[in-house]
Amino acid sequence: MKETTSGSVSNLAAVARLAGVSASTASKALNARSDVNEATRTRVESAARDLGYVPNALARGLMGGSTGTVGVITTDLEGRFALPILMGVEDALGIDRVLTFLCDARGDDARERRLVEELVSRRVDGIILVGKQTDVRPSLGRGLPVPVVYAYSMSDDPADLSVSVDNVQAGYMAAQHLVDSGRTKIAHISGEAPHSAAQRRSQGLLNLLSDRGLELTGQPMFGDWTEGWGRAAAALLLDSGREFDAILCASDQLARGVLDTLHERGITVPTQVAVMGIDNWVVLAQNSRPALTTVDMQLQKLGRVAARRLQDATAGRSSAGIEYLPSSVVIRDSTIPRL
Amino acid sequence: MKETTSGSVSNLAAVARLAGVSASTASKALNARSDVNEATRTRVESAARDLGYVPNALARGLMGGSTGTVGVITTDLEGRFALPILMGVEDALGIDRVLTFLCDARGDDARERRLVEELVSRRVDGIILVGKQTDVRPSLGRGLPVPVVYAYSMSDDPADLSVSVDNVQAGYMAAQHLVDSGRTKIAHISGEAPHSAAQRRSQGLLNLLSDRGLELTGQPMFGDWTEGWGRAAAALLLDSGREFDAILCASDQLARGVLDTLHERGITVPTQVAVMGIDNWVVLAQNSRPALTTVDMQLQKLGRVAARRLQDATAGRSSAGIEYLPSSVVIRDSTIPRL
Repeated sequence: MKETTSGSVSNLAAVARLAGVSASTASKALNARSDVNEATRTRVESAARDLGYVPNALARGLMGGSTGTVGVITTDLEGRFALPILMGVEDALGIDRVLTFLCDARGDDARERRLVEELVSRRVDGIILVGKQTDVRPSLGRGLPVPVVYAYSMSDDPADLSVSVDNVQAGYMAAQHLVDSGRTKIAHISGEAPHSAAQRRSQGLLNLLSDRGLELTGQPMFGDWTEGWGRAAAALLLDSGREFDAILCASDQLARGVLDTLHERGITVPTQVAVMGIDNWVVLAQNSRPALTTVDMQLQKLGRVAARRLQDATAGRSSAGIEYLPSSVVIRDSTIPRL
Repeated sequence: MKETTSGSVSNLAAVARLAGVSASTASKALNARSDVNEATRTRVESAARDLGYVPNALARGLMGGSTGTVGVITTDLEGRFALPILMGVEDALGIDRVLTFLCDARGDDARERRLVEELVSRRVDGIILVGKQTDVRPSLGRGLPVPVVYAYSMSDDPADLSVSVDNVQAGYMAAQHLVDSGRTKIAHISGEAPHSAAQRRSQGLLNLLSDRGLELTGQPMFGDWTEGWGRAAAALLLDSGREFDAILCASDQLARGVLDTLHERGITVPTQVAVMGIDNWVVLAQNSRPALTTVDMQLQKLGRVAARRLQDATAGRSSAGIEYLPSSVVIRDSTIPRL
């Protein structure tokens, strides 16, 4: 990624423009791959010399410079985290300077280790390791010859840099929206208790309630991250006889299940009960009935920040620890009645 | 990708094993990047010579051979198609031989063209272009110096090779499952009529019904691909007074909406009406109530086949036209009552 700051490396498109040919023709001329007439070849080579163009990323890499490649290792079979993060990396580094190797470790540590070795042997400028949960994971160790940034999941070595989402802030903001829109009796349905996301989102909710002198309705209801648990937990909550005017769900999937049960019991959302999710998994949140107010975890931004931290590390400005990024509320129809 | 058949190129891991060091140490020794003691460096270099190891993919690429890289360009903001296809590519080519540049064109033709040029300038061994619909798209043209395979979307140039899913067969198999499990009055709710997927899935359904001497209940109901249309279409169907014992939906999202309306109207699935989707979008299909019987489009296999066709083209065995891959029925609870 050095070229992103030095600015001295021209790209093929610039050579092609100067030579007045297509990039494809310029590439053929420079690589002697296919039939390009002699005059064109001479013109392209002259343009390349004028611009100080180094023929390709392979050559630049061998010359000891940047290869203009970054490795992203994901374990995300659904692509829900990997794609937005990839897009953020593309935005931060520019597709004309850096391309991304995306590799899927399939949740297998041995495969992850092999992928790291392959990426190192290809001289990537850096590696971003994307976890599928916001939990602490084992560090790859300090011996790697390229910088590594942990994204979403956090490394257990404080000497590593991790960029993750601020789940406490997400829970806090969600609760703030509910209280600011007039709700005072908030119940909370969450996912797997051992997950950092479940604990920290709950903590944020409790912090806001405490700041406002309110109390949670009942205890947080931990279960798993499925719609099924959302449906069951909402039924348990209704059957408990507790009074509530809002349910904060720790994920959009949970919220979908909660909406189903409320609908089935004839409870109107948001008039009688407001329902809110966290994640902004658009396909679920936008198509629910009513459309779901939720918290966007800003994964594309997370990709941009992780990529910039890799650039910083390459330029000798390493940082360490966990960097939490803020999320933002997306208001749809499940928390505030339409006027 | 030539090395996948020649078998003559050793990888770093083999060198490390022979030298009795970690791959990370072997990499440092060969790249003179960091402090490795002289004895270790000598041992690693000797192992590399013994195994005929070419230091890295960059060097192999410059020597005119394979770079062991494939470019996948997607336009799939949700990652629903891109990730399974990426996994198929990894499975077919092997992560120790070929790594994948994944790039997101964001549905922008100019960006797609730039990505193709970038990939070509990096000497990828081939490019897979993943569309987000199973429709015909413009060819990149015949002038590219690397083979291109179109996946999911199909090229409009019959000289190109496209690998896509067989939507006619998907509709046929879905209908076959419904008829074989005793349904005779099948209604059909579909997505956007101009889409090839909508037309071809309907065609498959009509083919099966015709083969069995049955007729569709009413006309296919085209709309859009949302849960909202699924809900509305099911209500229209119920209000039409037509008798039906099954609804084949052209997508899982539509089926989710249909299930909502049937549930709301007190109609039991599958006892009174069987509901079936197409796509096997697991997060939607597995968590619906009841869990949705659907058709799996085998996207990971599509990735494997596209990668193998690239290998074939690299080895001089090009093919052209559209290759359709079969899908398979996934039976859950929405079509057959549990015993």
